[in-house]
Amino acid sequence: MNEILKLDAVALISEVQSKRISHRDVCEAYIERIAQKETDVGAFIHFDPDQVRSVADGLDKQQATGPLAGLPVGVKDVIDTVDMPTGYGTDAYSGSRPVWDAPCVTQSKSAGALIMGKTVSTEFAMASPGETRNPWSPAHTPGGSSSGSCAAVASGMALMGFGTQTAGSIIRPASYCGVVGYKPSFGLLEPAEIKVLSHSLDTLGIVTRSVRDAALIVSVLSGRSGLALSRTPCSAPRVGLFRTPPFDMSEPATEAALDHAIARIEAAGGTVVEIDVPEDFVTTHDLHAAVMGWEVTRALSHERTVLWDQLTQVTRDFLTEKAKVTALDYDAALAALPLIKTSLAGAMTDVDVLLAPSAAGAAPKGLASTGAPTFNSPWTLLHMPALSVPAILDVGLLPVGVQVIGRVGDDARTLEISAWIEACLDAPKAKDFL
Amino acid sequence: MNEILKLDAVALISEVQSKRISHRDVCEAYIERIAQKETDVGAFIHFDPDQVRSVADGLDKQQATGPLAGLPVGVKDVIDTVDMPTGYGTDAYSGSRPVWDAPCVTQSKSAGALIMGKTVSTEFAMASPGETRNPWSPAHTPGGSSSGSCAAVASGMALMGFGTQTAGSIIRPASYCGVVGYKPSFGLLEPAEIKVLSHSLDTLGIVTRSVRDAALIVSVLSGRSGLALSRTPCSAPRVGLFRTPPFDMSEPATEAALDHAIARIEAAGGTVVEIDVPEDFVTTHDLHAAVMGWEVTRALSHERTVLWDQLTQVTRDFLTEKAKVTALDYDAALAALPLIKTSLAGAMTDVDVLLAPSAAGAAPKGLASTGAPTFNSPWTLLHMPALSVPAILDVGLLPVGVQVIGRVGDDARTLEISAWIEACLDAPKAKDFL
Repeated sequence: MNEILKLDAVALISEVQSKRISHRDVCEAYIERIAQKETDVGAFIHFDPDQVRSVADGLDKQQATGPLAGLPVGVKDVIDTVDMPTGYGTDAYSGSRPVWDAPCVTQSKSAGALIMGKTVSTEFAMASPGETRNPWSPAHTPGGSSSGSCAAVASGMALMGFGTQTAGSIIRPASYCGVVGYKPSFGLLEPAEIKVLSHSLDTLGIVTRSVRDAALIVSVLSGRSGLALSRTPCSAPRVGLFRTPPFDMSEPATEAALDHAIARIEAAGGTVVEIDVPEDFVTTHDLHAAVMGWEVTRALSHERTVLWDQLTQVTRDFLTEKAKVTALDYDAALAALPLIKTSLAGAMTDVDVLLAPSAAGAAPKGLASTGAPTFNSPWTLLHMPALSVPAILDVGLLPVGVQVIGRVGDDARTLEISAWIEACLDAPKAKDFL
Repeated sequence: MNEILKLDAVALISEVQSKRISHRDVCEAYIERIAQKETDVGAFIHFDPDQVRSVADGLDKQQATGPLAGLPVGVKDVIDTVDMPTGYGTDAYSGSRPVWDAPCVTQSKSAGALIMGKTVSTEFAMASPGETRNPWSPAHTPGGSSSGSCAAVASGMALMGFGTQTAGSIIRPASYCGVVGYKPSFGLLEPAEIKVLSHSLDTLGIVTRSVRDAALIVSVLSGRSGLALSRTPCSAPRVGLFRTPPFDMSEPATEAALDHAIARIEAAGGTVVEIDVPEDFVTTHDLHAAVMGWEVTRALSHERTVLWDQLTQVTRDFLTEKAKVTALDYDAALAALPLIKTSLAGAMTDVDVLLAPSAAGAAPKGLASTGAPTFNSPWTLLHMPALSVPAILDVGLLPVGVQVIGRVGDDARTLEISAWIEACLDAPKAKDFL
């Protein structure tokens, strides 16, 4: 294997900045990797090696040393790109070409990243899956909606993938694919020019190989240098085990991942206390459904009205269900949020972060469903920063992550602690890679 | 003058629904009006009479009786349309064609409205003006950024125009043009597929001839039938006069408009009390500048990076100034908001709505500037529903409005009271029209 592929983002960027590796070297290493893996994984909806080569050569010629120099990036298909087709995960818009790059794409390019291609999304980042398979086992879903970005990073075809989460579309597939998924605090990454589902929920995030990579990249994209991690790990954290309801939906694999995390955190000197789940927290799933239902029904007006016949049955069923929400439901949901935030803040008083399931279990078998966002939608609703960090392999040798959740706006501390937890979890790597 | 042009939206829709007037009749009346007025006013950036005729004939053929049947609408150029060019107010995107209609456009079409064309916006709905002139006096600005929509409604070329407000882009031009401007509570109208400036501030709204028209139209677009006004006026309201700081910026015309409103409200049985402006309210302009500055700098990444040379100098200066905001400023602004909301809620305890300036004065002379959003940006920041209601003509015979502001989410009551105030203000109409 090409040694370049073994470098994480922090190391690779440093090598490119110091000109020990050229942008073109990175580009060729990743193009070769994609040639090997893409047929099995199906992470990309658009990939043109010559286009990437041309960009890489341009950066080399400029002697570019941007803060993300040479970083190979996959851009989820719901994010606008001016020089690559943007299909929003649907045949109805297949091949369309926006007039701009979304801000997150411009920020990446300006920082010297290499946009490798567009990654597969479920239709409109909702429930109808694309062609991507789980790199750990092609019979299993990679999860969704950020299927391609998670699978690309998991199979070494990119070092970072953009994802979006309205319910559980970053954290869940990251867990299924054994990569780090980071959903920042709501609005930390600029969300413009990404297909809107729910303006109160849609959150832009990223998928990486490590927490340290995620922190560096988001520090650049968000214009907040303080988010990058120092070389010195933080002190041992106080962690609150949060059995997100309905916790009885969690499978043995997820319980094993949490047990593993608790044991390792405590062995490394951290403390873990179980948080009393506030009574009103059980309503968060219904509140999320009300907010998303009302907003997505309106946001997809054109698709529901004009393109209905071109949408998949899964999407039509999804939208039909969402459209049942009334204005009363929606208003009541928004009105209920402040009290829930207060009670959760009270429950978190003595801990730095929460530890919770990333998903019900490992990736389900089959490609017809991308799994359920049950353990994610409350944190999206509450706008809290969350990471999925790989923890264990289950009995079927599929990865299972755990979720670390911080306070709104406290992304710096959440990242530090997630990196600390990641280090003590020491999760197994994929067989053929790293 | 064609009698159809004299009908307000409520009356016109009713006539079209009952088939006493056809969609085509409305279409021809407005096409003729546009032929008369557009050369002087310059409200439209795209207008194709045959396209509108074709839509009108289609609706007649279907015997359509939608809730906005026949309503002639102008769509601000920052709002995506699939069958009309969308230039976002800039030469850099002139003539581009999105793959979808924004939700508000689909909702209008589905309800039977006639989209007459795209209306002029300042560049990216910011400071650099288009070609539109004030229908009351061509030497004066119509205000901005929703210049074309306000001027179109003011000159009888449409019965409703879509506007967007990030600082003062609906309320101010509505006041300058002598029309009703309605900025609903943040998020009440679905904001997707409209050029994003500031995701925490951007608010979709409308411009109409009367408050009753605005209420009917927004009730349809928002899916909230309760917003439409009943035939019975509400009881006399309790109004709080709010001398929005820096109140010494208000000119004699605005003070006269407020004095007129106070006298008429009291004469009609309402009460007006002066609100003690909470001390922390004076910071709202700086907080707005911090939120908008940080967000717009990121939202316009592509334009700042790739299209910079194609932007006007006014826009470049605007964006250069905005880019000075730091993450610290931004975070501090967001953190300061809850306390300001609390103190303002306290100050409003005994009143139903606030009465405040819509703008510093009547429309300034000249077309180089669209005026200042000083008296609008706090209410945009606070997400409160606001209407500009025409009040008087100033010494130069230019219209001056007053602003009615309600509690967040209380659009129904805010509309009712604005209609009550509108009725007692009895503002003069334009010379040549109605």
